[in-house]
Amino acid sequence: MPSITVHTAPAYDIHIGAGLLPSTGERLRKLFPKAVSAAVVTDDIVHGLYAPALLDSLRAAGFKTAEYVFPNGEESKNHERLLEIYGFLSANAVTRSDVIVALGGGVAGDLAGYAAATWLRGVPYVQIPTTFLAAVDSSVGGKTAVNIPTGKNLVGAFWQPRLVVCDTDTLATLPHDIFCDGVAESIKYGVLFDETLFDLLADGRAKERLDEIIRRCVDYKRQVVEEDERDTGRRQLLNFGHTLGHAIERETHFAISHGKAVGIGMVELTERTERLGISASGTAERIASALRSYDMQTHYEGRIRDLIPAMRGDKKRHGGELSFVVAQCVGLSRLHPVKVDALEDFLCGKGD
Amino acid sequence: MPSITVHTAPAYDIHIGAGLLPSTGERLRKLFPKAVSAAVVTDDIVHGLYAPALLDSLRAAGFKTAEYVFPNGEESKNHERLLEIYGFLSANAVTRSDVIVALGGGVAGDLAGYAAATWLRGVPYVQIPTTFLAAVDSSVGGKTAVNIPTGKNLVGAFWQPRLVVCDTDTLATLPHDIFCDGVAESIKYGVLFDETLFDLLADGRAKERLDEIIRRCVDYKRQVVEEDERDTGRRQLLNFGHTLGHAIERETHFAISHGKAVGIGMVELTERTERLGISASGTAERIASALRSYDMQTHYEGRIRDLIPAMRGDKKRHGGELSFVVAQCVGLSRLHPVKVDALEDFLCGKGD
Repeated sequence: MPSITVHTAPAYDIHIGAGLLPSTGERLRKLFPKAVSAAVVTDDIVHGLYAPALLDSLRAAGFKTAEYVFPNGEESKNHERLLEIYGFLSANAVTRSDVIVALGGGVAGDLAGYAAATWLRGVPYVQIPTTFLAAVDSSVGGKTAVNIPTGKNLVGAFWQPRLVVCDTDTLATLPHDIFCDGVAESIKYGVLFDETLFDLLADGRAKERLDEIIRRCVDYKRQVVEEDERDTGRRQLLNFGHTLGHAIERETHFAISHGKAVGIGMVELTERTERLGISASGTAERIASALRSYDMQTHYEGRIRDLIPAMRGDKKRHGGELSFVVAQCVGLSRLHPVKVDALEDFLCGKGD
Repeated sequence: MPSITVHTAPAYDIHIGAGLLPSTGERLRKLFPKAVSAAVVTDDIVHGLYAPALLDSLRAAGFKTAEYVFPNGEESKNHERLLEIYGFLSANAVTRSDVIVALGGGVAGDLAGYAAATWLRGVPYVQIPTTFLAAVDSSVGGKTAVNIPTGKNLVGAFWQPRLVVCDTDTLATLPHDIFCDGVAESIKYGVLFDETLFDLLADGRAKERLDEIIRRCVDYKRQVVEEDERDTGRRQLLNFGHTLGHAIERETHFAISHGKAVGIGMVELTERTERLGISASGTAERIASALRSYDMQTHYEGRIRDLIPAMRGDKKRHGGELSFVVAQCVGLSRLHPVKVDALEDFLCGKGD
């Protein structure tokens, strides 16, 4: 089984492979020899699919288990659910020597991770991503968050998991629509760092090469997180497509999901940076073509101009500037700061 | 003006002296040359006393200012206020290159500090303590928190301020009752580390020696925070009197304030550890006598036995153990773990 180690403080491993879920208890016991409780946080869909196997495995390893189940969906990533989780942790007397287990997609990971970051000023947690998107993106790197009415992920913490267990069996059976979110984020890694990875994705056949794609993506994520854990430099590259993507998610009230919004963001942005001579011509079309091979949308249906107010509140804003990530070509990228006052010039040509 | 530097990452200074408030803007500008906004969080009493001078000083130093004012009191340290602060930060477009200013006592510091720790996954903040208690305790060391229905400070983060400005003029005019909270915490430092400091406090005349007392207390706090930022070892000594104190606060619905509850906690605990041969005889009476010289209560009116359920949920609990801090004599202390099952034997003799 491939394992990647992330050298943050403390360092943690990412286990990737088929059939790992039933051995999760053992893996956790090795890491937490003295822990009494394992508190699982998951959504109501994942609960039905994978909670029984996980809970059995935890109990077999001697953990007292408890489970908090929330309604599937981005709407659950709010303070109301968070306060319920605190109540759940309180009722189960979860202490700093116990462990929280995030089982599910990005919402479970962000919500449980943020609860772990803030409960008693920080308790250990592990990530068990069950979506392709969470496997390649949110489960690694310690970014945790909840949404507030004025924006997505505006409240959060950097809090590294102590282990990530990615059982690829859980990803192979995902509905096409959910699978695509992971495809879009994986294409992002290809565009940012690695044309070979991009080509593994560009023909619509990612499912056949899932292990290799995840390993490559997670290894890039590991590199940038190790270099820049708190997202002040190189890690910001991972935001490629995200400034537009987040604005699209907000404007469509999350009807367009995260991965797909990022996909659209990458294409829309790169068309513009091509026009400005920042990106090699043809780059946007290569990204769009890869997305199309999975039947994903490549363009925003509204006007990009109308997204600008939402972008002004982006948390990557520093004072009067927004840091965009631009692809010079497939496999090479850099940061490109844009003054907030110049956003319209940067994004809106004729017809935008 | 005395200045103490705390060597966490990043390091920060604590400025202590009379008349510092009007120069706060300048001090902040040196630290944050590029910041656009300074967002002040304070309560409705402190607002009337010190916000005008602070806001003027910030504006004179070129900061765009905004102010969030909450009702004075521990009841404000909740998620409702916290969500209002997030809305306030959102409305004022506060970014990671701006700064949050906590002006007030422990509630303002904890609430604003926790908002700073979690807004955009962490923005800089500075502490301007205006109570004796906040000056010697909560303003230094980066512990931030809010209360939830099941307990005090159960949700929080370690997030160091970038500067602490302690204008002793703001402390000299405190009502006696509020002043006493700081006295009790200062006595704690004396009992833990320093008999000379204890003696500066033990005759009821702390007000005459405020600068020296604060300097000594803050310097002990600095030492333990540098050694153990995340409170897993030596820093736990600062919890002397707190396990009982927090339970007393809860049981009395905060009618007994933090400092006074800790004062009672120190005496009640030390009477018991004397009986167990852990503390030199006479230690509890020396602490009680010092508290009495300020007309502070020395004993809990209810039964200590009834506090045990609240103590079981203490966040210093690790698995099946609670880590008590015990005074061997005035000036010397150590950790003393007690199994949760043995709490009653430890705390309850005849008549308890």
